[in-house]
This record gives sequence, C-alpha cells and structure tokens, in this order.
Amino acid sequence: MIVVMQSGCAQADVDHVVGLIRELGLTDHVIVGTDRTVVAAIGDKRGVDMSALETSPMVDRIVPILAPYKVASREVKKEPSVIPIGTGGAAVGGQKVAVIAGPCSVENEKQLMAVAAAVKSAGAVGLRGGAFKPRTNPYDFQGLGEAGLKLLAKARSETGLAIVTEVMSIDQVDLVAEYADVLQIGTRNMHNFNLLIAAGRTEKPVMLKRGWSATLQEFLLAAEYIMSEGNQNVILCERGIRTHESYVRNTLPLAIIPAIKRESHLPIVVDPSQGTGHAYMVPAMSRAAIAAGADGLMIEVHPDPEHALTDGAQSITPAGFGDLMKDIRSISGAVGRSS
Amino acid sequence: MIVVMQSGCAQADVDHVVGLIRELGLTDHVIVGTDRTVVAAIGDKRGVDMSALETSPMVDRIVPILAPYKVASREVKKEPSVIPIGTGGAAVGGQKVAVIAGPCSVENEKQLMAVAAAVKSAGAVGLRGGAFKPRTNPYDFQGLGEAGLKLLAKARSETGLAIVTEVMSIDQVDLVAEYADVLQIGTRNMHNFNLLIAAGRTEKPVMLKRGWSATLQEFLLAAEYIMSEGNQNVILCERGIRTHESYVRNTLPLAIIPAIKRESHLPIVVDPSQGTGHAYMVPAMSRAAIAAGADGLMIEVHPDPEHALTDGAQSITPAGFGDLMKDIRSISGAVGRSS
Amino acid sequence: MIVVMQSGCAQADVDHVVGLIRELGLTDHVIVGTDRTVVAAIGDKRGVDMSALETSPMVDRIVPILAPYKVASREVKKEPSVIPIGTGGAAVGGQKVAVIAGPCSVENEKQLMAVAAAVKSAGAVGLRGGAFKPRTNPYDFQGLGEAGLKLLAKARSETGLAIVTEVMSIDQVDLVAEYADVLQIGTRNMHNFNLLIAAGRTEKPVMLKRGWSATLQEFLLAAEYIMSEGNQNVILCERGIRTHESYVRNTLPLAIIPAIKRESHLPIVVDPSQGTGHAYMVPAMSRAAIAAGADGLMIEVHPDPEHALTDGAQSITPAGFGDLMKDIRSISGAVGRSS
Amino acid sequence: MIVVMQSGCAQADVDHVVGLIRELGLTDHVIVGTDRTVVAAIGDKRGVDMSALETSPMVDRIVPILAPYKVASREVKKEPSVIPIGTGGAAVGGQKVAVIAGPCSVENEKQLMAVAAAVKSAGAVGLRGGAFKPRTNPYDFQGLGEAGLKLLAKARSETGLAIVTEVMSIDQVDLVAEYADVLQIGTRNMHNFNLLIAAGRTEKPVMLKRGWSATLQEFLLAAEYIMSEGNQNVILCERGIRTHESYVRNTLPLAIIPAIKRESHLPIVVDPSQGTGHAYMVPAMSRAAIAAGADGLMIEVHPDPEHALTDGAQSITPAGFGDLMKDIRSISGAVGRSS
Repeated sequence: MIVVMQSGCAQADVDHVVGLIRELGLTDHVIVGTDRTVVAAIGDKRGVDMSALETSPMVDRIVPILAPYKVASREVKKEPSVIPIGTGGAAVGGQKVAVIAGPCSVENEKQLMAVAAAVKSAGAVGLRGGAFKPRTNPYDFQGLGEAGLKLLAKARSETGLAIVTEVMSIDQVDLVAEYADVLQIGTRNMHNFNLLIAAGRTEKPVMLKRGWSATLQEFLLAAEYIMSEGNQNVILCERGIRTHESYVRNTLPLAIIPAIKRESHLPIVVDPSQGTGHAYMVPAMSRAAIAAGADGLMIEVHPDPEHALTDGAQSITPAGFGDLMKDIRSISGAVGRSS
Repeated sequence: MIVVMQSGCAQADVDHVVGLIRELGLTDHVIVGTDRTVVAAIGDKRGVDMSALETSPMVDRIVPILAPYKVASREVKKEPSVIPIGTGGAAVGGQKVAVIAGPCSVENEKQLMAVAAAVKSAGAVGLRGGAFKPRTNPYDFQGLGEAGLKLLAKARSETGLAIVTEVMSIDQVDLVAEYADVLQIGTRNMHNFNLLIAAGRTEKPVMLKRGWSATLQEFLLAAEYIMSEGNQNVILCERGIRTHESYVRNTLPLAIIPAIKRESHLPIVVDPSQGTGHAYMVPAMSRAAIAAGADGLMIEVHPDPEHALTDGAQSITPAGFGDLMKDIRSISGAVGRSS
Repeated sequence: MIVVMQSGCAQADVDHVVGLIRELGLTDHVIVGTDRTVVAAIGDKRGVDMSALETSPMVDRIVPILAPYKVASREVKKEPSVIPIGTGGAAVGGQKVAVIAGPCSVENEKQLMAVAAAVKSAGAVGLRGGAFKPRTNPYDFQGLGEAGLKLLAKARSETGLAIVTEVMSIDQVDLVAEYADVLQIGTRNMHNFNLLIAAGRTEKPVMLKRGWSATLQEFLLAAEYIMSEGNQNVILCERGIRTHESYVRNTLPLAIIPAIKRESHLPIVVDPSQGTGHAYMVPAMSRAAIAAGADGLMIEVHPDPEHALTDGAQSITPAGFGDLMKDIRSISGAVGRSS
Repeated sequence: MIVVMQSGCAQADVDHVVGLIRELGLTDHVIVGTDRTVVAAIGDKRGVDMSALETSPMVDRIVPILAPYKVASREVKKEPSVIPIGTGGAAVGGQKVAVIAGPCSVENEKQLMAVAAAVKSAGAVGLRGGAFKPRTNPYDFQGLGEAGLKLLAKARSETGLAIVTEVMSIDQVDLVAEYADVLQIGTRNMHNFNLLIAAGRTEKPVMLKRGWSATLQEFLLAAEYIMSEGNQNVILCERGIRTHESYVRNTLPLAIIPAIKRESHLPIVVDPSQGTGHAYMVPAMSRAAIAAGADGLMIEVHPDPEHALTDGAQSITPAGFGDLMKDIRSISGAVGRSS
C-alpha cells in the first residue's frame, strides 16, 4: 500500500500515518518527493481495510499494491487450470474449446430433448438449461424447478452431454448438485457471498458469471470465495456489462480474456447470447471470443425462438447452431486449438 | 407493445407478426407509415416475453409501452406511502425527513453504544449497523452475526432508535427479523430474488438498496417482488451506481428522486456514504439529497474512522454528524419539511 | 510516479526500470516488499509519457502520483477564484449564487426579449442562448449565427444581463467574443484543444462544460489548456455524464462539486437542464446543486417549450422559472449564500 | 414517432397532442389500449425536434420510430461500400481485410521510415502516424505539424503505403488533405461538427473514430454530417468506449461490428491499440475484431515503445507486428477473407 500525502502536509501528519502503519504490523517507508511525500507500507495484510487511512489528516489517497485475491491468481499457480466437466471426458481450459449450448429455460421434455440431440450432434460438449430462473419480473416464468432438473438428467443419459444449470439460492445447492455436472452462479448472484460459499463446499465445478458491473478484481474475488472453501474448480464466464450502449442488451468486453489469462490460472468462457441480447449478433461474437482466446462458449439454442418462454430474442435455432459450430471450428483451428 | 417492422417488409411478414400477437391473446393494430410499418399489440400481458418477436422475419425491434411493475406504481396507488419504522413513532415518507445513522459494522458494545447515543442526541430516528456483512473479499471482517444483532437490540432499548440492519441470505431472514425493525437488502442482493421473496413474507419493513447497475425499472421490479408476497412496506434506497468516474467510489444520481416520485408511491432515501465512498463528500451530498426531495438519509458514523473495521474511508465522526444534522435541518426547512 | 513490478521479477528487471527513470532525469527509489518490488520515481516531469514504462519487462503497472494539471489546482492557488461576468457587477464563485437562464437557441427577437425580461425580473444575472448550435443531427436547426448574436447583444442592452453563448469553432471565436460576455465551450468540444487554445487567447471568461465521459482530471486539464494561454477566467460547468441510466438523458453527478472544490480554485456551476434532459426534474436538481455547493446554475427557459426549435423537452417556462428562483433563494440561504 | 400518454389522461390531452402532430404536417393515429393511449405520428420529419412534445400535458414519453440518419443507412444503399485508399490499389470494405499500422506520433525520420518499411513488409496497406496530436495534457508533446506530414509523404513514396493521419481543426484540413490519403477524425472530435463539415468538403476519404461515449446513432449521424456535404467515402473506426472497467483504458465493444453491418453500408475498422490501452492485449483483440467481421485494423507500432513520445503503453514492436500479421491472415482465412 502507498499512502499519498497532500501537498503541504506537516511532519506530524506523516508521523501519524507512520504510526497507523506500524500499528497494523506493517513496515513503513517514507519517500519525500519534490511535490509530494508518499509513505509505503510493506507487508501483506490483505484482510485489513487500509482505505480508512484516507480519512487521516492531510492524506490525499491510498494506492493498493497487492491484488486482494490469492488462490485464484497466477502468482500462486502458474499453469492454467483445466476443469473436467461431466463424465464424458470433456474439460474447460485445455487445448479443446468447450462449447456448451441449450435453451435458456427447460420448458418441457420435447423441447429439451430436441435441443440436446441437436447440439450434441453439432459438437457441443455441455448442455445448458435453466430449471430455476432468476427473473427480473416477478410475473414472468420462473422455471420448472426439480422437474426441470430431472429432464436435464434424462438429456444427459441420452446424449452424454455435461449438464450446466443455475443455482439461485443456498437452499437449492444440494438439490442442483445432485443432478447437475456444473453449478452455474448467475450474474445477479456474483456478489451473493453466502451462495458462493455454499457452492464452494460442494464437489461440483462452478461456472461463475461476472456481475453486470463487477470489476475484474471483484470477479476474481468471487472466485476466491468459492476456492477458499476448498473447491478449486471454478470456470469464469464473461457475459457482458452494463454501459451506455443501447444497440445491445449488454456490452461484451472481450479484452477481459487476455486480462484474466495474465492475472489468473482459471479458464474463462464467454456467453455471447446474454452478452449481446440479440440472436443476430451471436455468431460474430462467438467467433470473436474464440479468436481472443476464450476457453469455451455458452450459447442459447431454442427450436422455436419466437415462442420461447425466456430469452427468445437472443436464442439461435439448432440449424443456426450447426452453422455456427463450423465457424467455431475454423477459428479454433486458426488459433491452434480444436473444438 | 409496438412491433417496428424493417423497411421493405412484405405483407406476409406483417401477417406473421399479427398472427403471433393474436396467439398471445392481444389485439393487433397495424399502422402503415411513410417509411415504416408498425404493429401495435393492445392488452396487458406483463408476464409474457414479447421481446422474442424481435426474431421474427423483418422485425426491426420491439418497444414496450406498459411499465412491467404494478403494485409499486403510482398508477395503482396515487398517494405517497408512509412507512412506520420501529416503535418510537418514526416513519419514512412523511413530512419529516428520516435520518438513519450508525456504523458500517457493529464492532463491539462500546463502539455501538457510543454512536447510538450520539446520533440519537443529534436527531437521528434510526440506527444502522451491520451484523452480517457482505464483503467483496473473503478475507475481510464478516461481521459479528447474532452477537451483533443482540447489541443492536440493546442499543434500541437504550435509545429508542429504530434498528436497520442487513440480511444477506434466506437462512438469516427469521433471525434478523427477530431483532431488527427494518430489514435491509443490500445493493449486491437487489437481484437475489429468493431473498426478496423471503423478505416479502415477513412483516418487517424492507429497506431495498438499488443495485450498482440496476435500471429504475429493475429497481421497482425488485420492490414488486417483495410487495407481491404481501409486504407493502418497502423503502427504496439510492446508494450510487457504477460509472467511469474515479474520484468517487460510486456515482450518486440524485435525479432518481424526482423520477421515483413520478413513477411510484414508495418513499426513497439516499445513502451518501456508500454513494460517494469518501467522508469529505458526505455533507454536501446529504444536503443535496434532501434538497432534491429525498425522504431520508442513511449515513455511516464511526467514533474513530481510521480504525473502523469496514468502510472507514466514508465514515464521518459523531461530531461531524452533529454539524451535518444542523445543515439537514436548514435544508429540510427550505423545502418545507422538518427533520 | 510509482512503478509496480510483477512478482518474481529479477534484479535486472528492476535495474532496467531504474535506468529508464534516471534517463528521464528523475531520482529512483526502490522498495522491496514482501510480495512485490516497487520503484518510486521522484521529480516533476508532468509532460513526459511515463506510462510507456508499463511495456518494460516484468512491469505490472504505473501509478502516477502528481496530478497532471498545475494552474487549475488548489496547490498553486489556495483561495477560490471569483470570475466577474458582464458589466453589471455579476460574478461567479463568490458569496452569491449566479443564475444564468434563457432559451436553448435564440429563435427570434420576440422569443428572446420575452425570456430575457422574465428571467431578469425573476433574479437571473446572466442570459444564455445559442446562436451557433452543435446539433447531433445535420438536418436539425443549426442556429441563427451572427443574427442571433446581435439579438443577444440587444437583450443585454435592454436588461443588463451578462450574455453567455456558445462558440463551436476556432473561426467563430473573434465574432462571438465581440458580442458575448462569456464564451461557452460545450460538452462536445471539451476535448477540442484548438478551440480551448483559441478561447484562452481572448480576454473573455470561458464557461467550460464537462465532456460526456470526461474524467475529473481531463476536465481540469481542459481548463489548464485555456489557462496556460493566459486566460485565468474559467468557469467549470457540470452538465451530466453518459451512463447506463435511461430515465434521464444524462446522469448528473453532483459529487463533482465537493471534488472540484478540493482539487481546484475554479468556480463550478451546474446545468440541470442538459444534466437530466427532462423539464420535470429541473427544479429538484437545481435545488440539489445549490445545496451541494454549486456556485451557479445554467437553466433553459422557453416561453413555449412545446414549440421550441431545440431542447423543448428540458425547458421550463418563465412562470416555472419564477417559482424555481424562490426555491433557489431558500436553499441558498440555508447554505449561507444569497442568490 | 409514437407519443405514449400517461394513464388517466383526458380526451382533451389526446386532442392537444393530435393538434400538435397536425401542426407539424404529420398524420395522427390514435390507439386506445387497455391501460394506455398512444398516438402515432406518421410521416418523415427527421429535422424536427419532436421530443418537445414530452412537455405536453399528460404525455409520458416519446418513442422515435425512424432512424435519424439517411445516407449512411442500409435502407438507402443496400450493398456495402468499398472505399479505395491511396494510389496503390488498397481499399477498405472489400474482401480483403485492410491493416493500417504505424506509430502513434511521427517523431523523426528514422523512426518513421523504420516502422513504415517494417509494416509494409509484414503486409500492411496503410501507414498511420500523427503529425497533429490531440493531447489531453497541454504540457505533452503536440506533434511535429507540417514537418511530420512531409515525413509521412516521404514514407509513402518509399513504401507505397496509404497515409492515414489526423486532422484536429478546420484550419488544418487543407494542409493535411494535401499530404494525406485518408483524413482521420479522432474520438475527441467526433462531435466537432464544423470539422466534420470541413472534411466532408474535401475529396479525401475520412476515417471517423467513434466518440468515447457516442451511441451507435450518434456515430452514424457524425458520418451523415460528412456525407451530406458530398463526401461519401467514410470509414468508421471503433476505438473503445468509457465504462467502469479499469483493467483497460477503454472497453472495446466488438458487437458494434454486426450492428453497423445491419444498419449501414459503410465499412468499419477497429483500433485495438486505443481500444485497450495495453500492448499485451493488442494481438488478442486484433484477432477478435477480424473474427467478428471488421473490415480492417488500425494498429500502433513503435520500434522502441519504452521511449515512445506518446502511447508507448499500447504500442507493439515491428517484430510483434510481424507475428500478429500471421495470426490476422489465419483468422481472415477462417472467415473467408484475405489480408
């Protein structure tokens, strides 16, 4: 941590800051510049709220030096993590780009089995589908619950696809973990710390979606919550952020891919369906994500988007998904990967 | 809902949209303009995902006309709601501006009782203080839990202040409701729908903080979740949004006050501590919030901000709070209210 | 400047950075922490692009310590600047809150004289009105040009109000300076450095509007451009930023007022018309701005907003302005100022 | 345009709106819904400020239906525009992906010639380099001016590369047009309408960079300014937007590529250097842009980024550019293009 003093501070102000730093068990180091004095505090106290020093007399601001996350960081583990999903040998983070596809919501058996068969045949390794749905509007369809989970399990036995489905609440964790191969924590729950902890106590991989306005640091700290409970199998998922842009439902910031690769050993996948909100943009952004180095994709596929109960506007058809998989394979090859 | 067709659409494209509208049980109304054809769909189907029609052939976009919330809206209830808090006769939403103050976290008995006495004597009607703390970093102080709730109850019996404290998870709702006068749902949980529902099933007023990047509509829909479970006592709280600005921790958008007053009958309070992140800005933004028509304030007060376990940077001292209450009273008077 | 090295850097990496720092004529200071090494560079080289050092081997990032602006800063001039405007004794930045009001565009003589008389009588000290209009759409009304300037001058002779009007381009500077008392540089031109320089070479005060997405630092650097040409009379104007919010045309971040007061000696006024985009929000945000410490207001007033050629949606009527001035006086009094 | 009335409006309110619509020369069409009445206004009045109707009694809001731009739209011209640049047969918008590379600033002859030769040999078709530099800080290097233009012209004669360089101000337009093959208008000037008009009166293609916080609509309207003066050769350039993200200098929203392709016939290129601010992200985002369908790239290349006078942090070396061109060729091939 660096404490930047205001210009014109007195020696007593510096001494006061030095005292506080020593009280925290850190070592101080004062540097008197031409215009400003700064005080460096040496040592690792990631759990202490050092920003409080900004209220000390004549302090201008506090600059943290250490990233607040540990086990998610590349400093602690240099080689990229590869997270196996399901029992069919699929994994996220290895040489092969992992494509997970399926409907936004599990609506009924016919819909789910049709999509599962189609995406499997086109090359997906995972099946997504919501049984518990976080809906902004309380009057909207809220998902089939356990009946939906049973349909997902059935689709797995028919296709071998790994099942990725959302858990919204701590009281659903055991139930969802019973059926799913990967527990998805949605964007609205990235800061639901009790849920992160509960997921961290299961043995299932967790697909953690970035919050709408989360920083990269907060995203990795959410992963750290899960990992610090003992579950190292976290897959990060970028799904778009809130900005002023209105031609998209969310702005999809793909530069987070090289940034995560630099900061962390965890794999990162991209959701171009949520990440744009419009079906017509999904192919372009799927290709871009792979080209930027993403380890996988989450794509919404529905046999009849016009009649989808949720997210029809951003769902592509099974035929569209088949075409897209060809593009994905071309791009994967061009960046030295397979899919 | 208005369906805007692309230019150059054929009659068959319009007929297809008309068919989908009728299928939904709505009445269609086609308007052929000079450049564009639009199809209006008449009727109230707030629970249906009509945005899916954007995937229909030659549809350009969908424009919703009805606000998706009902019971929170001013259309349904014209007169402003006044929400009583605690047993001392305080309320939020009436002529008197309600000031709720206290430490970010309950740290120990001495700290809490000192702050409670000070803010009571300066004119606050509520005591805030976290027993369960949502912390971005898993290694940070997580709150005293039930022991903290007991201290808050003790502070209430000593001062008569209404207790406002956060509930983070559905399994804490009953426990927190046992001690608190107002259940606070934090910004990170505004989209935790299971928690909203659980709070909606209690009889305690709920202080609902706006999510970091929530729209006004999503904010009111979160209130609607609580209210549609039967609990009408929702107090909205603006606490800042994420933007590109870096001289603040959050950007505090006070224009939401007149907007909420126009859209909803619910009262709105402002948290200038979270809403700026810097103690030095709290007085100015407290005054501004009252001047803009806020029904109350949530302010972080700590006897020793430099040593606060959480949020020291944005906490003011009891002496500073005393000065601020004088300003708040002046501004309240200038806008025809008391405090 | 602080150079933060990556963890695991070698001594040669540190030496390389030290070499670059010395090459710049700065003094280096290496601090070896428990996890990270940082190198402080001491000395004032505000004109050098030191961020380039981030490309050096094993450098994590660069943290600037000095603010890049000088003459606009409070370090250089402690007492607040008071900027006289017009010849009637009005000023911005003193004890009195300065209200500048008028139509978005000068449309014709009748409209302008009616508004000028009305705002003068209600207590305004300045008249705003655009003769050159920056319009997003090339097909929209572009202003009356010099004819508009002449009408403004006529309104000044009739009312004594100081004239504030926009200059959009370097070739208009002399012409506008001939008629206006204050040159306004609009939000779209805050980064038009040639225009800033040209305005800095006149002797007229400049009203500088913050860019839609400018940081506080960039805002003060734009002022610095004007001031470094010799013109110290810069009035800052906050008029809202671009965010994800859609219930407003812009989000008005009033916390910039205490931030500017801390960083700079320049006065700051607020434009609640542009800053919200909706007439119904203007009174609330005008009161809030004064309560937060603004030195003045810029308000759009039109005798017939429904028929305004520009910005009708955010214009209030002369009657509405009269009512608002009463509120502004109350709030000004409550914060120890007059208006 | 659709006028949405507030619920509970009277017939007189609707009649008033109908009257205003007829006054504008538009045809009205009233639709009485179950909860709301809406009034459609039929006809094309793109130059009229219809948002003013929002101030009429009992009007809730105005919804525009027509896009405000015309000549830039795909409605007016279906086939994609191909813009020739320079005299060597290069073009932007055709089957071949156009790569334009070079230093941020022209610093001296040796630097420029070295970069020009290197990027030419690696496969670039254009040379970028600033002679007039828009610098946020008045104390920073401002460019070589005409001397820089002469060096660029010399580089063209040595390599045959098309020269792309920025024009900052109307008084530079003729001079820059004399030397350059493409006039670049930078992000800070996208709303400098006088400059857009001046560029529209030249015969040189214009590279128009999106403003930091411009909407897609404003971006196309800026192009419309240029085109409505007679110059149809506009190349759009996405270079990142301002958001809350801090691991990048700008957030690069690649979904604008499919959006522009849907809305407009103009070609779009991407600047991954400005668009991220960090050299290490440039290769990933260059690949992603091509995969998403970009027609070209603008890339900053410097022989010695640590000593660059401007933008060193985001410049790659000639060797790095050589490697990147191989990737770009692979990705171009994978999406059916060459480069």
